[in-house]
Parts: sequence; C-alpha cells; structure tokens
Amino acid sequence: MKPFDVIGIGYAAVDYLGVVPHYPELDEKVRMVDFARQGGGPVATATVTLARLGARASYVGKVGDDDFGEYILRQLQAEGVDTSRVIVERGEQSRFSFIIVDKNTGKRTIIWKTLDSPLRVDELDREHVLSGGILHLDGHEQEAALAAARWANDAGIPVSLDAGSVHPNTEELLSYVDVLVASHKFAQDFTGKSDPVAAVRDMARGRTRVSVVTSGEDGCVCKDGKVEFHIPAFQVDVVDTTGAGDVFHGAFVYGMLQDWDLRRTAEFAAAAAAIKCTKLGGRAGIPTLPETLAFLRGRSI
Amino acid sequence: MKPFDVIGIGYAAVDYLGVVPHYPELDEKVRMVDFARQGGGPVATATVTLARLGARASYVGKVGDDDFGEYILRQLQAEGVDTSRVIVERGEQSRFSFIIVDKNTGKRTIIWKTLDSPLRVDELDREHVLSGGILHLDGHEQEAALAAARWANDAGIPVSLDAGSVHPNTEELLSYVDVLVASHKFAQDFTGKSDPVAAVRDMARGRTRVSVVTSGEDGCVCKDGKVEFHIPAFQVDVVDTTGAGDVFHGAFVYGMLQDWDLRRTAEFAAAAAAIKCTKLGGRAGIPTLPETLAFLRGRSI
Repeated sequence: MKPFDVIGIGYAAVDYLGVVPHYPELDEKVRMVDFARQGGGPVATATVTLARLGARASYVGKVGDDDFGEYILRQLQAEGVDTSRVIVERGEQSRFSFIIVDKNTGKRTIIWKTLDSPLRVDELDREHVLSGGILHLDGHEQEAALAAARWANDAGIPVSLDAGSVHPNTEELLSYVDVLVASHKFAQDFTGKSDPVAAVRDMARGRTRVSVVTSGEDGCVCKDGKVEFHIPAFQVDVVDTTGAGDVFHGAFVYGMLQDWDLRRTAEFAAAAAAIKCTKLGGRAGIPTLPETLAFLRGRSI
Repeated sequence: MKPFDVIGIGYAAVDYLGVVPHYPELDEKVRMVDFARQGGGPVATATVTLARLGARASYVGKVGDDDFGEYILRQLQAEGVDTSRVIVERGEQSRFSFIIVDKNTGKRTIIWKTLDSPLRVDELDREHVLSGGILHLDGHEQEAALAAARWANDAGIPVSLDAGSVHPNTEELLSYVDVLVASHKFAQDFTGKSDPVAAVRDMARGRTRVSVVTSGEDGCVCKDGKVEFHIPAFQVDVVDTTGAGDVFHGAFVYGMLQDWDLRRTAEFAAAAAAIKCTKLGGRAGIPTLPETLAFLRGRSI
C-alpha cells in the first residue's frame, strides 16, 4: 500500500472572513456581524476534506515564514494532513484572503494575495509526489504542477485537476489530466461554450476520461466514457459558499479512491459541498464520512 | 507640569489593508496589488500622531487578550504612546478592520468589528484620565467617555471630540465638549443641515467654543468665538485616505496644545492629514513635526 491516498499540490492560504449585513459600496463603512479565521486554498482545503472523510492526504506547497504560514501549517496538521514536504520560504509573506460574506445570500467576495515566489520544480520531492494513489492539483504552482503531473503520468498515477481559471500553461497541463473538474467560468473561458453540457463534452478529450463542470447553486454536469448527466445542488440553508468548490473536489477525489461510479461520486461531492455551506468559512462545515452518508440517506436529488 | 499632554479614550484596532486594482462586485474574486497591517482606530491613531509630533500621549481603552490585542499594544508602545491604563479583556476578540483601498482613487471601504464588552466607568483610573492637558475622545466607549468628560469639565481640562457618527448619548456628551471636530456625515446627521457652514454654526453652542466640519478632499470649515472660515484640502498624490481624519484630529489637538490660533491649527492639521494620505495605511504616513512644518512652508493654500 502506498503511504498516502492523495498528494495535493497547490494553494494554501489564511482566510479572514467577515459577514456583513449588506455588501458595502466603495468608500462606505460597514460593521461585521460575524468574523472568523480559517485555513483556505483550493488544494489545501481539498486535502482537509479528504482527511475528514478518512483518507490519508498530504499537502505539498509553499508558505512564508510569517505568522500566517505558521497558522496554515498548524491548521493542516490539526486535521491530520501531512505537511512534511511544505516549503517555508524565508522573507516571504504567506497567502492571505479577506472574504466578505453577504449575510442575505451567503455569497462571498474574495480579496486575495499570493506568494511572490512560486514553488519550484527543484523544491519537489519526486518520490513523495508519487507516494499517493491520486495526484490532485488546483492550477496554482503551475511549473511544479506540470512537472508533478508528468511524473504521475509516467508512474500510472491518476491526475485530478480543480480548474478555476485559465492560465498560460493550462492546455499543456490538461494533456496530463485524467479527471478534470472545472468551474463554470473555467469551462466557458477554456472551451468558449457557455452551455455546461457543450463545455463538458469539449473538455473530455485526450487522456481526460472524466470531466465535470460545476455551477454552484445550479449543480454540476458530469461526463465519462459511459455516462453524461446533470445533478442539481442540494438545497440547504446557506451561510457561506466559501470553499464549497474545494470541498466538492476533495470529496470527488474521495469517491474516485473508493472506485464509486461517476453518479455516486458526484452526488457524494455535491452533498459534502452543500453541508459545508451551512457554516461560516471554508473548513468549519466540512463533514465527516458518516455525516455525508447520513445527509445523502435523508435526501434524494 | 502634568505627566501627559493628552489622554485619549476610545477606539484602537488592527487594520488589514488590501489595495485592489478595482473595487470588486459581490461574488467576485480580486487580487490585491498591495497589502499592509497597521494599528488603527480614531483615538489610537490620534495619540500616535501626537507622539510623532512630539507630544506626550496616553491611550486609554480596551483590547482583547488575543494576538490582535498584543499587536495593537505593541504598535502604540513602539510609537512612545503610553498604554499603562489599557484594559486587556479575557476571552475578548480585539477590534479589527479589513480595509479595501481602491488603487485609482485611494478611497477606502472599511469592514470593521468592535468589542463585545465596552470599557466600563469602573475600569477608568480617574487620576490618570485627569493627568493630561487635554482629554481627546472619539465617541466610542460612550459610557466611559461620558464619565471622563464630566471629570475633565470639573477639573478644568479641555475636552476635544472627534465626532464621526451620532450615537444615543451624543447630545449629552456634547454638553461637556469644548472642541468639536466633526465629519461632514456627523454634522449633517446631527444638525440636519447639509451645508457645512450652517452646520458648523449650529454646532458652536453650549460650552463648545470651537467647531469644525471636515469634508475630506473638500477641506474643512472652522469656527470659534472670533473667526469662521473654510480651508481647502492640500493637493497630494493620494495613495490611501484611511485614517486621514484621525491624523487631522491628532494634529488639531497638537495645535491646541501650542495655543496656536484656529487658522494655524486647522492648516497644520490639514497638512498632517494630507501627508498621511501619501502612504498606505492609517499610520505609515503620519508625519513628524519638522516634516509637517516643511510641507507647510512649501505650500500655500
């Protein structure tokens, strides 16, 4: 057995979340009705999701040697996510997001900063990258992600990509991706098709055998070699949508690890993401496996 | 000689500032082009201004026993502001603001949180409150401010108020105020008059012998028993307006300490506030006395 179920390479951040009674206009002052600090970032939150669900996950990436970086690592470690290969860059300011959550809709506006120095290929431990059953990427740390995806292809390890935005090397990266779960925005920008069904078909090419387009409250469209379907989002009392996509991705990878079929995997991921939205922040609401299964038993799409 | 030139009672916070290329819409993601952390809060930043100008200032107020609270105190102490009477409340989350600075205009949108437990009168050290030449308030910590203002009146110590918003006890508090420097918003809400000249006349009543209405880039209108005039704001390359009002108040109190006439005091305060706006954050740009005087020599309104 490999040491890890999943190796995730990508973005980790500190999220500060302020809930506001209304979204402010420029030059306005508005008082928060709630405030939280949590770890965030697509791949980092996906690895936390996998750990809560019971999988053995390792986060690989870079943080600064500041208090934000310490917080990021502490939060991952507290969830049981391996951080042994995280690079702590001297003199670097860690990734940070301020997230304004609209109390009425649960919609979030994200103001983010990233690192000045990206993760380099020579900072990757090849053996560690290949020590998981699946390699999960988020399109950040592009140079390192590209190298890692190539290694994984050569080693026969499936590569999963959380695609949020189109980057210069996206086309090349996709040539190494087995499972592509994309935001509606990415799908539209990349394929030029605003209809998720048309986009999901376009995205299923080359080695990509599974493609998914997620559209938040409008659910997701999924396609593999056998089936193609849409599932709606589960209806819950939304407090905050921050991280819902990241949790969807983590839970989707969990389904792949279990060899579930595409429909079961997508419904499971949609359930985990919906449960997350009932609490403030990207991580507080991430469910355990029993919680997700109980939720699914109580609902039918 | 009294131990302090000024005792300030009111608001102290941590400010996180993110500069954005454009102000985001709800549900958007936008990347910061600059980020800074600084101490903030009207009275706290006014005491820092006074300290930079060379006055002996003490900040009195409350913080939580968290990392934000430690940061707030460290920043004040580093400026030479006395914090010996600050109350550190157990289990309390300190005041925090996230400030979105629009790169194009320098205008700032503030999302703020305050303390759950206000400063109580029994937490004030009466002798300390009366140990300064002027008592400066900002309308926060209303109960404590009211008691302190009464004590100051009885002791013959002038009371200066930075009035930003109308509160339930504003009317009562104003009956103890000698120098009232109000935002345009306060002046309008309190007097019902949108014209600053009409408002500044209305505000000069009871014991209030000096009244000022500040209108940001439109300058300020000032009135005392002898004169009434408008001065425009100094033109500078604005990076960020955060804290400009707080610095104006601190520098205005400095002018009062020097017994300067109203025009000189207001011009000095306007100069200090303008210089502040050339740097990101409420405090980085606060000038020293030589810097402010040099700026004034180089300009004429």
